[in-house]
Amino acid sequence: MRTFIIWARKARTVGDFDVHNLPAAGKMDLVCRCLSNALGVSHHLRNDTKCYIILEGKPEPPKALLVDGTTLQRWKDDESSIGQLIKDALRGSCPPGVSIEKKSFEAVVREQAATSQLFYLHDKGEDIRAATVQEDVTFVLGDLFGIPTKTEKLLKRLEAKRVSLGPVMLFASQCITLVHNELDRRIYKKE
Amino acid sequence: MRTFIIWARKARTVGDFDVHNLPAAGKMDLVCRCLSNALGVSHHLRNDTKCYIILEGKPEPPKALLVDGTTLQRWKDDESSIGQLIKDALRGSCPPGVSIEKKSFEAVVREQAATSQLFYLHDKGEDIRAATVQEDVTFVLGDLFGIPTKTEKLLKRLEAKRVSLGPVMLFASQCITLVHNELDRRIYKKE
Repeated sequence: MRTFIIWARKARTVGDFDVHNLPAAGKMDLVCRCLSNALGVSHHLRNDTKCYIILEGKPEPPKALLVDGTTLQRWKDDESSIGQLIKDALRGSCPPGVSIEKKSFEAVVREQAATSQLFYLHDKGEDIRAATVQEDVTFVLGDLFGIPTKTEKLLKRLEAKRVSLGPVMLFASQCITLVHNELDRRIYKKE
Repeated sequence: MRTFIIWARKARTVGDFDVHNLPAAGKMDLVCRCLSNALGVSHHLRNDTKCYIILEGKPEPPKALLVDGTTLQRWKDDESSIGQLIKDALRGSCPPGVSIEKKSFEAVVREQAATSQLFYLHDKGEDIRAATVQEDVTFVLGDLFGIPTKTEKLLKRLEAKRVSLGPVMLFASQCITLVHNELDRRIYKKE
């Protein structure tokens, strides 16, 4: 199982936003692109992947949205459709594979650490291409606003390892694509 | 210089579509995600990158849209904003760094081949991590509908090399992120 935990520190926490103006909802467009790359590949869904988004914007933070590729039944990759799915979930309407609850970033990370190898992305981390990765693995990513020092201390206490993906600072959505590719290369063999 | 040429075989060729329903405009959402990943990274624009989109949908194919990171001045990464930019360009209103002309996929590829090393993505190609890449390089990507055999013959005549990115078939937008990362790793050094 692959799990991503994305910390969206400004993303709106009630379903009152305009899905046609996602940037105005605390950069919800970034969140949608993360989910799109976490769950979708050409012609199918990643049914080995779960993605938590920790929404921490106004007015009711924190909320933990989970999109679970193991049980998800329908998926559209475009931002507006994913934005609508998040909006519906925040209003209490969750399709199979989607759930939302009042839970903090720290609580989700602690839960994952109990059963899964934990990494967080950091520009001074070990190159992911050299990292030893277990089968059940969780990657923690900040958004544009980064991960505060206090939280990094928690991650260290939970023995999370720092990994880097390359020399250029990327969007979280792009980081997800790179992590998936590295894991795909290790797991799947070409025919 | 890095150049991407994306072949969008169903994408609408006049600016009459609804930017809030991009999938209905011949999967224009895919096109937007390609441009988003080609040009944008966290906190800045990729000013070493050009991206051609060859629109081949109804009603006036083909049209070649160029978004040139060397001269682009304003950029928003979300799908709706990029969709609006494409729509405006198709209506004749192009901001600096954006242009559109009646030109075929083949014509754009031939032009690029005259001055740039040419690759195209193919699942049986050499692993990009092992490929020798020159400074001026062009990557040709198909969309969901692939690259026809006839066109592959043209690419071979132009001595384009096949490269693969990994064992899982990805969206073109995701492929762009992986190509950028490989080139970034070779060019930029960490501080």
